[in-house]
Amino acid sequence: MPIEATLGSIGRMNQTVEPSHHHLPAAFMRRLRRILPADGLLQKSTEVAAYECDGLPVYRARPRAVALPRIAAEVGQVLALCAEYQVPVVARGAGTGLSGGALPHPEGIVLSLARMNRILALDPDNRTARLEPGVRNLAVSEAARSHGLFYAPDPSSQIACTIGGNVAENAGGVHCLKYGLTTHNILALKFFDADGALHEIGGPTGEWPLDLAALLTGSEGLLGVVVEATVRLWPKPPSTVAYLAAFRSLEAAAASVSEVVALGLVPAGLELMDGLALSAAQAYTGIAYPEGSAAVVLAEVDGDDLTVALEGERLRAIFTAQGAFAVEQAVSDEDRRRLWLGRKSAFPAVGRLAPDYYCMDGTIPRRSLVAVLTEIGELSRRYGLPVANVFHAGDGNLHPLILYDAAIQGQLEQVEALGADILRLCLVHGGTISGEHGVGVEKLDGMCAQFTAAELATFHALKSAFDPHHLLNPGKAVPTPARCVEAGGMHVHGGHQPFPHLERF
Amino acid sequence: MPIEATLGSIGRMNQTVEPSHHHLPAAFMRRLRRILPADGLLQKSTEVAAYECDGLPVYRARPRAVALPRIAAEVGQVLALCAEYQVPVVARGAGTGLSGGALPHPEGIVLSLARMNRILALDPDNRTARLEPGVRNLAVSEAARSHGLFYAPDPSSQIACTIGGNVAENAGGVHCLKYGLTTHNILALKFFDADGALHEIGGPTGEWPLDLAALLTGSEGLLGVVVEATVRLWPKPPSTVAYLAAFRSLEAAAASVSEVVALGLVPAGLELMDGLALSAAQAYTGIAYPEGSAAVVLAEVDGDDLTVALEGERLRAIFTAQGAFAVEQAVSDEDRRRLWLGRKSAFPAVGRLAPDYYCMDGTIPRRSLVAVLTEIGELSRRYGLPVANVFHAGDGNLHPLILYDAAIQGQLEQVEALGADILRLCLVHGGTISGEHGVGVEKLDGMCAQFTAAELATFHALKSAFDPHHLLNPGKAVPTPARCVEAGGMHVHGGHQPFPHLERF
Repeated sequence: MPIEATLGSIGRMNQTVEPSHHHLPAAFMRRLRRILPADGLLQKSTEVAAYECDGLPVYRARPRAVALPRIAAEVGQVLALCAEYQVPVVARGAGTGLSGGALPHPEGIVLSLARMNRILALDPDNRTARLEPGVRNLAVSEAARSHGLFYAPDPSSQIACTIGGNVAENAGGVHCLKYGLTTHNILALKFFDADGALHEIGGPTGEWPLDLAALLTGSEGLLGVVVEATVRLWPKPPSTVAYLAAFRSLEAAAASVSEVVALGLVPAGLELMDGLALSAAQAYTGIAYPEGSAAVVLAEVDGDDLTVALEGERLRAIFTAQGAFAVEQAVSDEDRRRLWLGRKSAFPAVGRLAPDYYCMDGTIPRRSLVAVLTEIGELSRRYGLPVANVFHAGDGNLHPLILYDAAIQGQLEQVEALGADILRLCLVHGGTISGEHGVGVEKLDGMCAQFTAAELATFHALKSAFDPHHLLNPGKAVPTPARCVEAGGMHVHGGHQPFPHLERF
Repeated sequence: MPIEATLGSIGRMNQTVEPSHHHLPAAFMRRLRRILPADGLLQKSTEVAAYECDGLPVYRARPRAVALPRIAAEVGQVLALCAEYQVPVVARGAGTGLSGGALPHPEGIVLSLARMNRILALDPDNRTARLEPGVRNLAVSEAARSHGLFYAPDPSSQIACTIGGNVAENAGGVHCLKYGLTTHNILALKFFDADGALHEIGGPTGEWPLDLAALLTGSEGLLGVVVEATVRLWPKPPSTVAYLAAFRSLEAAAASVSEVVALGLVPAGLELMDGLALSAAQAYTGIAYPEGSAAVVLAEVDGDDLTVALEGERLRAIFTAQGAFAVEQAVSDEDRRRLWLGRKSAFPAVGRLAPDYYCMDGTIPRRSLVAVLTEIGELSRRYGLPVANVFHAGDGNLHPLILYDAAIQGQLEQVEALGADILRLCLVHGGTISGEHGVGVEKLDGMCAQFTAAELATFHALKSAFDPHHLLNPGKAVPTPARCVEAGGMHVHGGHQPFPHLERF
């Protein structure tokens, strides 16, 4: 069964890779120290330990050193120095990524952009902000609030995660259904390439024959290190109302989401939580969901008062027609905050139900929601592993959370197999193995399943064009051909064609 | 004045480049004929003549042959054959491009996708369409109409231009202010690389570490040949109303556009026509504009009835406050069609005012509209060359039309100089040298002004990664370093920084 082989190696490392005994050259370290501020170079193992993983802690590695520049010029100099000595560099924001994209290289350095956290300009006339990469996502909206503006992409980690990391991962969020992903909100980027040469790409308007800004966004640190992003700000809508619709079955909730989208409504958010996620959130936050809810759909509409009233009524009518037994409405900021709190804290809440959980990330066409959720439920029963579903239903972006206990012998392997089955489901339904959490180290084998050898070769050629010696985040996001062969390389293309490879499962 | 040197070489060719006496190898031609349908290979000079230019006829070159495949597999085979014999290939849709992107290579072949014009699938549930590259833009919306859907990007040439060309140029249109450019409406692409290897990229949802679909879109045929695009369809809004606001000065009209955007309104279209464009359109179409109009702003709002009514009233209030002396409203399809007819036929209408006209394309931040239009007026007077302005004001995308007579000795050179001055204005105000018409052959020197040597080197590396022997549309879109040196290479970066290079003008 080659699909298990290609999709099944999540979590395999689950232990810290110690740095090898091969030290970085003394001259390199001396020059690195000279580039950086006095407190800008960490080498002691106690200091470096904090950087050995990101939000996917089953993968760990200790870097040789951590560089903490304060200004863009230092970043360029660090990269030029690393190129000279052929030292691998892993750029890092807040380390909240969920696919191991910021996992250090044991022979290299971590380049933390966390101290470059200034908002360089806010331009309300053109509704843009110029940001250093270490600016926290939520800080942008906070700074823009007094101008009646906000920054739209809002990943769950928005209190902590940084704009640089958001660009590297093309972060989404609850509101991306209406306002787009990070890539749709980036107007210009400044980045250094692997040689330390500065590139300034994009502008307030206009387009280029080769859209490097779109290419850099989501490139997981493979192509360059972003030192400045100009982002689009949106006018804060005069009115916002959130709805919670409670259903007696997960299938009915999923069907209502498909119906909302099919009828042409584009709410600012459209999320689904299943029964397990609800009980976890209720226990964690104290929020009471309607008694007997097997699943709830959360939706938000924003705009002018009349639009909001009208769309809200249409939403309510759809939910009711699809079998919702209760539809609640939250108008005040406080009520809406409470309504979303359960959703935003669902991951940690579910995390309390079991010693460990594994957060999956895949996509499917929205019309397949009911079928895929039903099949995930069957898989969960077959494996005997609980799966909670909390996700961006409007985008067809699933986040099944598999609950397990790593201390039980063999259970991690079971989780891997179940995870592979869930991603296989996504591919079979014409979806993808990654929605918004990136590939990192976690989904390298999945890339073999998703792409042909020719396509992977193009990815490699592209990587080499920017970084010929593969010093920028090496080994991430794009698997080597050898790895794909070893993993039993095969691919399944999504989309609307028939699936010629299905019989190979 | 290096900026004139770098921006000033438009229209230099203005004559047909004849194919050299060096013929393509007989074996190549024989194999090419075998790949293609019986009527799919043109070689006679009378047949080939129709392909010697696109919508920028000052550049002309005759290809050795024109290949007209009917299915995707033939495209792959043609590309593999061209790679084997190292024959340059220029892909072509309807040839409506305005920057010479489809100008043939005199030693190569034209690969016309015009006969691959099938709509492969319409999926109303997921609101997508799967299209061959030769499908006409307008045909997509026509086919989607019965499902209550439409395809949003609508360049002026939409009756003729094709989806493949739209992807190559990242086409915009009147409605892209609200619905995005082509790149925002492409969900998946199938393309062949320079070796004839098929790539399938993207899907209904999801993202990749390297967003090849975004990279291909707008890449002007440098990276691959698209044989299938899956595009997003939008629900046709239940209500649409168009407005025409007439002003006694161009500056007031421009200021009203800035105000609409600053107040957070996002009309489906927001266009401006100046007095010269109005009188041309009036003479050409018979549409009567309000007496005494120095400029008009056209705006369209769509959505639910109430939204449309509300936004319409806000628009009317802004126009009136900004000095509009008349605001007309068009509700019925017929009235709206008439209202837009003047805008859509403005280019040919202006074309009747003088023997020749040159359509510029640049962008500026929207807050600079008044200043830039005023300066363009002054430049027009100084050069003694009339300039009509018809453009996507809401996007800050200018299309000044310079009227001239190529038969008058030296006048083309004057047009070149004025054009360079106008693009310089765009750069100085933080804009760009290309909005939506692409670089092609027309703006190669402008690219030297816009980008640094390091950035251009990255573009070249990227091109080489996809097409190592530079067989795909060679010589277009990205200038060689030698050309930039010869042109007095310099660059001016847009954006919100101060302009350190200004003193070098």
